[in-house]
Amino acid sequence: MRYQLTIEYDGTDYVGWQRQDSGVSIQSVMEDAVFRYCGERTEVYGSGRTDAGVHAMGQVAHVDIERGDSAHKVQNALNFYLKNKNIVVVGAQEAREDFHSRFDATKRTYLYRISTRYVPPCLEKNRVWHLGYDLDVKAMQQAANFLLGKHDFTSFRSTACGAKSPIKTLEKLDVVRVNDEIHLHVAAKSFLHHQVRNFTGTLRDVGMGKMAPEQVKEILEARDRAQAGITAPACGLYLVQVDY
Amino acid sequence: MRYQLTIEYDGTDYVGWQRQDSGVSIQSVMEDAVFRYCGERTEVYGSGRTDAGVHAMGQVAHVDIERGDSAHKVQNALNFYLKNKNIVVVGAQEAREDFHSRFDATKRTYLYRISTRYVPPCLEKNRVWHLGYDLDVKAMQQAANFLLGKHDFTSFRSTACGAKSPIKTLEKLDVVRVNDEIHLHVAAKSFLHHQVRNFTGTLRDVGMGKMAPEQVKEILEARDRAQAGITAPACGLYLVQVDY
Repeated sequence: MRYQLTIEYDGTDYVGWQRQDSGVSIQSVMEDAVFRYCGERTEVYGSGRTDAGVHAMGQVAHVDIERGDSAHKVQNALNFYLKNKNIVVVGAQEAREDFHSRFDATKRTYLYRISTRYVPPCLEKNRVWHLGYDLDVKAMQQAANFLLGKHDFTSFRSTACGAKSPIKTLEKLDVVRVNDEIHLHVAAKSFLHHQVRNFTGTLRDVGMGKMAPEQVKEILEARDRAQAGITAPACGLYLVQVDY
Repeated sequence: MRYQLTIEYDGTDYVGWQRQDSGVSIQSVMEDAVFRYCGERTEVYGSGRTDAGVHAMGQVAHVDIERGDSAHKVQNALNFYLKNKNIVVVGAQEAREDFHSRFDATKRTYLYRISTRYVPPCLEKNRVWHLGYDLDVKAMQQAANFLLGKHDFTSFRSTACGAKSPIKTLEKLDVVRVNDEIHLHVAAKSFLHHQVRNFTGTLRDVGMGKMAPEQVKEILEARDRAQAGITAPACGLYLVQVDY
């Protein structure tokens, strides 16, 4: 039986979604939970990797479990074994046998949270990128609008990115002030490695007035990673939702 | 020079505001930070105690420091020494020499957060009281309204409460749904020990339908702690603001 799981996690203490030798991944903890529940060693396939320190409210994964319990029972059992792991299965449903969390996804939505308040985060520690100064949200939105649509996003792509093509279609990039935070809501069918964090680093420069909004268009067209801003830290990034 | 400090903290790993032998308090960490900054051993007076595990966005304290730096400099210095302590000074100002954080307070505002979603908190771990089922917010508000005004709140007072009189005037008790949480906004000049948490435990019973809203009036009038509901856990409670 194939199950579709929706997963929330605090990525702070993990090396990221993907299993790897350098430390504990969310995927490996999920697979351990499956094993402890039903004794089956099986892969939990995520909709995509998230980097070390990146959080999720709605990562989606699929997993095949022979035991065949109801989705509700699977969810409860996994959450039992995920106690104190900072990972929780917020939704579970039975899926078609050919459902694929990664290849069937039609849209991924991310949130990036910037804290503009003077003093460091405390209750929101590891949850925001703390800048400590305000940004010009209107200028950031003007710059963001140049990124919407289908483009070669080489300038915003990590050198480690394994995607075959740098061409992606950005559906949404909204910049919104929420109290003493600035939120970036970003959506596309798929993203290049570090794309949202590189957008954020560059839009931060626009918000500071270091760069005019129009320069982001030039950076995009240059197809040169060196021209864009820094990669914003992982702790401000959330995978909010994956649509199918 | 006397300073008025506004302090945010994550109370999870502390025994509460007040210095005590059983563990590390927010007050003692604040006093250590003052000492490391200026070499002065002096008391940091809070507007009131908060229990172990209770958080604050806006605890207020006053402290006398002979060195006489600007409030801005004091704030920055304290935050430097409070790094990684889950405590941050969000505001600082010079105060009158007779200003008293506790005795001059005219209103204290608390927030209590209940999580109603089925699965346990993850990103909001230690930040909410997780119930896992929904509550009738309208009934809770009806019950809350019986508590407004000046009453003998013995039924909602901890047996350990040291206040001379059980009579307090409740200014606000709003019950509001916010996504999959229920928030209680509570304000008064001052509170009895555990008063907000005991309100919450009792209103939870009303929200579950275990108790009619009118019963809360009877409980109030009974002046008997045994008739009210449980003391809701500390982790959902926040000291939001103290007015002067």
